[in-house]
Amino acid sequence: MRFVRVQRQDGRWFGRLSTDTTVRLWSAAPWAGGVELDRTVPFVAAEAMVPVEPTKIVCVGRNYRAHAAELGNEMPREPLLFFKPPSALASSGEPIRLPSASERVEHESELAVVMGAKLCDGRPDDALAAVFGYAAANDVTARDLQKRDGQWARAKGFDSFCPLGPWIETELALEQTEVRAVVNGELRQHGFVRDMAFPVADLVAYISRIMTLEPGDVVLTGTPEGVGPLRAGDVVEVSVSGIGSIRNPVAAR
Amino acid sequence: MRFVRVQRQDGRWFGRLSTDTTVRLWSAAPWAGGVELDRTVPFVAAEAMVPVEPTKIVCVGRNYRAHAAELGNEMPREPLLFFKPPSALASSGEPIRLPSASERVEHESELAVVMGAKLCDGRPDDALAAVFGYAAANDVTARDLQKRDGQWARAKGFDSFCPLGPWIETELALEQTEVRAVVNGELRQHGFVRDMAFPVADLVAYISRIMTLEPGDVVLTGTPEGVGPLRAGDVVEVSVSGIGSIRNPVAAR
Repeated sequence: MRFVRVQRQDGRWFGRLSTDTTVRLWSAAPWAGGVELDRTVPFVAAEAMVPVEPTKIVCVGRNYRAHAAELGNEMPREPLLFFKPPSALASSGEPIRLPSASERVEHESELAVVMGAKLCDGRPDDALAAVFGYAAANDVTARDLQKRDGQWARAKGFDSFCPLGPWIETELALEQTEVRAVVNGELRQHGFVRDMAFPVADLVAYISRIMTLEPGDVVLTGTPEGVGPLRAGDVVEVSVSGIGSIRNPVAAR
Repeated sequence: MRFVRVQRQDGRWFGRLSTDTTVRLWSAAPWAGGVELDRTVPFVAAEAMVPVEPTKIVCVGRNYRAHAAELGNEMPREPLLFFKPPSALASSGEPIRLPSASERVEHESELAVVMGAKLCDGRPDDALAAVFGYAAANDVTARDLQKRDGQWARAKGFDSFCPLGPWIETELALEQTEVRAVVNGELRQHGFVRDMAFPVADLVAYISRIMTLEPGDVVLTGTPEGVGPLRAGDVVEVSVSGIGSIRNPVAAR
């Protein structure tokens, strides 16, 4: 099933895509006690919002070997965690705005995990049962500031630096899933989720042993090789097979 | 004015301390459109919750020269930002739980800033007008993991690693404000807010030029010198003059 959030004249609604063009509205997010309502509306892509409102976005660095190598980094022995702030979220179609503080902003295509239940001290065996679904995300990064600051909060935290969507897909065969980034129609990144150093279940369990994951929280699972710069006027598309694509134009601030 | 949040049998309420022992309840948080109700209840410290529900907690490292020096660090030329997750928040009285993954957990007493209005691209001149008030906070840190991981998300992100409270004080003379940490009755840290490398107005404005600050968001402003270890059985108290104190026992996990 695919869950969306739409901005309409009568408010913001969570809903389920009952066909490619129809949304069945929900009373609230499915992970927050929502129930399906007896009301359908047309699905208008321009009204689609980021499909989740997380209390935190936990990200993982260097989770694909070829990407760690391309930046000259060793693979960590444990997942390398950092955060992006919820204020960085952007929907498909919303511009990524290049900050004047950076000379080098790059795309990082990623599989996003959306939690469906609270998870604390989880084990890999039970972690996936607490996952609600998956989305495509772009962990946009100011590479120069990332290197200069040491901590990555600024480099990865600018408004619009976390496009996520276009919906949450609840059924995904992780072993077959491919993650891609396409810039101006040209393939720049691709990798398979099965090549992650720390698979999704291990990541979610590991994070939950540090911090309680709340329903609606998001985990970004790292980017495959091929990261590269974004310039004003570009259009960057992150696709995850079995889910769909988010497309964001790039704009000068 | 002092604003609290209390857990009562009939739910969770924001309120204003009208006397030391009386809370005047509010319909919602003051920064979220709440209004004062015609209802007072006794203030019971044991019912006091963390007085804020931020969408993000933005923290600043190395903001007092003497603390940067004690850890052997240079002062940054710009504020050094990182995040703590909202899941780390703990109220006064709640135990700080030592994670088994760390051999060295330390206290960091800090002044917390609570936003009252949305702020994007702020200037130091207008930043304080968007601040709602101030609280005491403890930026608890697993020092060994902080050094080992490089990124500080894990070291500073464990559940219970962000005690904050006991209330939000809306009136504070920043120039006179002193921040202290006392462990088992012994003074361990003290410093004056006026000795910050980047004053509160500059910090808030700087952050808002990177990421939009939402009402209720929290900024932790860095710790003065004297950080040190916490052991199971300790009681750590962070005091901010003009506000009050939070006291947290330390427990093995």
